[in-house]
Amino acid sequence: MNRIEIEQFLQEHKQRIEQTLPVYINTLQAPQTLKQAMSYSLEAGGKRIRPLLLLATLHAFGKEVEVGVPVACAIEMIHTYSLIHDDLPSMDNDDLRRGKPTNHKVFGEAMAILAGDGLLTYAFQVIAEMNAPTVTEEMKVKLIYELAKAAGPEGMVAGQVADMEGEGKELSLEQLEYIHRNKTGKMLQYSVLAGAILAGANEIQLEQLHAFASHLGLAFQIRDDILDIEGSEEKIGKRVGSDVENEKVTYPSLLTLDGAKEKLLYHINEAKRCLQDARVNDDVLCYICDLVATRDH
Amino acid sequence: MNRIEIEQFLQEHKQRIEQTLPVYINTLQAPQTLKQAMSYSLEAGGKRIRPLLLLATLHAFGKEVEVGVPVACAIEMIHTYSLIHDDLPSMDNDDLRRGKPTNHKVFGEAMAILAGDGLLTYAFQVIAEMNAPTVTEEMKVKLIYELAKAAGPEGMVAGQVADMEGEGKELSLEQLEYIHRNKTGKMLQYSVLAGAILAGANEIQLEQLHAFASHLGLAFQIRDDILDIEGSEEKIGKRVGSDVENEKVTYPSLLTLDGAKEKLLYHINEAKRCLQDARVNDDVLCYICDLVATRDH
Repeated sequence: MNRIEIEQFLQEHKQRIEQTLPVYINTLQAPQTLKQAMSYSLEAGGKRIRPLLLLATLHAFGKEVEVGVPVACAIEMIHTYSLIHDDLPSMDNDDLRRGKPTNHKVFGEAMAILAGDGLLTYAFQVIAEMNAPTVTEEMKVKLIYELAKAAGPEGMVAGQVADMEGEGKELSLEQLEYIHRNKTGKMLQYSVLAGAILAGANEIQLEQLHAFASHLGLAFQIRDDILDIEGSEEKIGKRVGSDVENEKVTYPSLLTLDGAKEKLLYHINEAKRCLQDARVNDDVLCYICDLVATRDH
Repeated sequence: MNRIEIEQFLQEHKQRIEQTLPVYINTLQAPQTLKQAMSYSLEAGGKRIRPLLLLATLHAFGKEVEVGVPVACAIEMIHTYSLIHDDLPSMDNDDLRRGKPTNHKVFGEAMAILAGDGLLTYAFQVIAEMNAPTVTEEMKVKLIYELAKAAGPEGMVAGQVADMEGEGKELSLEQLEYIHRNKTGKMLQYSVLAGAILAGANEIQLEQLHAFASHLGLAFQIRDDILDIEGSEEKIGKRVGSDVENEKVTYPSLLTLDGAKEKLLYHINEAKRCLQDARVNDDVLCYICDLVATRDH
């Protein structure tokens, strides 16, 4: 696809996800306030990079992307739950997220915790109840197993704990990478993996895509750290410079700003190389790499 | 089995669960503090009634109970996560649980939230990675789907929200039952359902066991309310009389203490009747009914 077609692909599928998420919540037999609290953060926007990575991976294998929509929504539910809990007063204590008041600021702390718990649990239900004819029970179990590993105590939750415990401490590059590989990396990786599982990728391709996603995840985080220095508050929707203020260890603080930019470029190039090795149709995934490297929010 | 054999069955299998739970946590590749926080509440004791219900259901169908141990542990993880989050300052703000300081009192609020998130997510992983030869992929998907429904926004989380929203309000018996059916009932029901799924029960038996578990769940909650009036603080491990103090609507407050006791008996008898209808070996499950009706903690 050419650049315009790729942009259209991403735009269309972002809309598809954003239209489907409210449907999942509306069909729930649950108290109204809970549904409102879950919807509020789900519908707060964002780049939807994880769902798009999943759908772009299906496209890379020449598959219908529609089959991936439920898992894409489940991923966005898990991502959203993690933001709601991270923002809580006892965690990062953030009042704003994407320019809007955080969940607990609107619904109170107790409801925010429960909305997060609800989104996390519902994600597994959404995958378990998939009923497309090409999705086997075996695929569903693998999708659920890998999601739990990526999101749970061996993945995102581990990263969040390591991040918390690293606050105010001198961290090595290795420790910083442990945090990011787990806190953000594993769910980005899962998004690609889930697409590959649904596409019926072979073991070698799974490995190559795993490596691709690993580089992309680190690039994503490095860009995040750079944005906290160079970004525009208006575009990011939250304060910049907070890392320096909080004496937080980041890629620029360990490697200098130029060093971080170099490392970002290295991981983007490696990510693209892995895609070539996998011999898939890499047009959209490469475009997403460039988006991650140059994004301003 | 006679009474002594039944008690031995329950004692043995309680130990089996309590020996297996730490193994699940120890094998995790996760930060030490997170594993400690997860273990602390998992190992805080309790009656383990949910895991035992699952294993007793397998026994009722004449199946080896061993095959149910992973799901039994997953259920206990979900139950434990719900206690950790319920005890948080923004929720019930409890300092003690089973006579021990609550999770956030020991590990801090942020870690308690993450330990809960970790246990909830890990429960799904534990089921997805089951590998007994009699457990099919189809069974695993059904076990996961039903668990998410029982624990999530259409089950336990809904009950918790309704409970919170009902605080300080006049509730009807119907509203009170909505809360309990969801907050505690659905996970008790799931425990029986999971055993029946693993045993390969037919549709009619599933329905009868569903009804059994529904009555048992309500009986469980009525006994809870009665214990808050008549119980011993030492045995329960938390303060009694708090419902009256907090002007909380309970079965005794709606039906009088005698009325509540009558209703308890009604549900226990109905539960036993459903078991008879299901034509299963009901010795252990009936004994659990009596335990629930007469428990002092």
